[in-house]
Amino acid sequence: MKHVKESERSRGLVIVYTGDGKGKTTAALGMALRATGYSMKVCMIQFIKGSWFYGELKSCKLLAPNFRIIPAGKGFIGTVDDDKPISQHIAAAREALRASKKIISSGSYDVVILDEINYAINLKLIGLAEVLGLIRKRPLHVSLVLTGRRAPQQLIDVADLVTEMRKIKHPYDKGMTARKGIDF
Amino acid sequence: MKHVKESERSRGLVIVYTGDGKGKTTAALGMALRATGYSMKVCMIQFIKGSWFYGELKSCKLLAPNFRIIPAGKGFIGTVDDDKPISQHIAAAREALRASKKIISSGSYDVVILDEINYAINLKLIGLAEVLGLIRKRPLHVSLVLTGRRAPQQLIDVADLVTEMRKIKHPYDKGMTARKGIDF
Repeated sequence: MKHVKESERSRGLVIVYTGDGKGKTTAALGMALRATGYSMKVCMIQFIKGSWFYGELKSCKLLAPNFRIIPAGKGFIGTVDDDKPISQHIAAAREALRASKKIISSGSYDVVILDEINYAINLKLIGLAEVLGLIRKRPLHVSLVLTGRRAPQQLIDVADLVTEMRKIKHPYDKGMTARKGIDF
Repeated sequence: MKHVKESERSRGLVIVYTGDGKGKTTAALGMALRATGYSMKVCMIQFIKGSWFYGELKSCKLLAPNFRIIPAGKGFIGTVDDDKPISQHIAAAREALRASKKIISSGSYDVVILDEINYAINLKLIGLAEVLGLIRKRPLHVSLVLTGRRAPQQLIDVADLVTEMRKIKHPYDKGMTARKGIDF
């Protein structure tokens, strides 16, 4: 193991969960559970409108008051719906980015989860440069978790931990529908 | 989408999180958070002695009373320690298997997480046939989550959902140490 400076030890990590498999947001929720177990403060911000189900919000209450969740588009929560006009998705992602800047720079949260931000970058709903700036300028103790498929290489380059969730098998392939408590 | 029989809809899923990347146990914890958000009952059983940190146990209390956690080796919890004699690991894994049988067959838990069971099979601490029997004979409403690297192909064959957590980048590579609330 290489030598690590003291400042490095207290620095928050930048974590990326990407890939086409299930488990990215779920792992971020698991991290929220771990961190709040230590009385750390966690905030999760949604970047893709309609990508959450009610399950996340119900779970959120279990971890109160140390876990806050900010849905995209101010409170709109629905099932995944690809018919929404792109302008709605852009507005939601931009609003999520503004909220993230505020939450991160406040320094009051130890872990900030930017849910589906990778996908939002990939869809060009928000710019990569702005996200890289957000990471660079964060208070050093803040850990960031960025989820979503197709994380750009420049994001992977600045991250400390990157896991690709690769789909080997998915129940939808067999025609199964989403399950309460499992998928949402 | 193919036609799905009604009995299939209410059947619990068999989920496998495998691979060498971070996020397997974390995703299982996230699933526990989601499920308990719906007042479902969840039990997590540890198969590899010393594979958990205190974080899991602290988090567990946040989800009480619907989340139960059973550490391998009856309460022994330490940091990962590869110096333990293999006999201790075998005893812990066998005890975990016995506990799992009891917990699963009781039908009182909606989701049972068998943490690091894939790795325990791979290390031949427990037999694959016994685990396949456990899956086959479970009460149908029970969902199982099997974590750990190197899941055997026969397990993947019977699973509904399989995600490989592939390591792209890990902070230990840069000489960083484990972080409270993130890793444990």
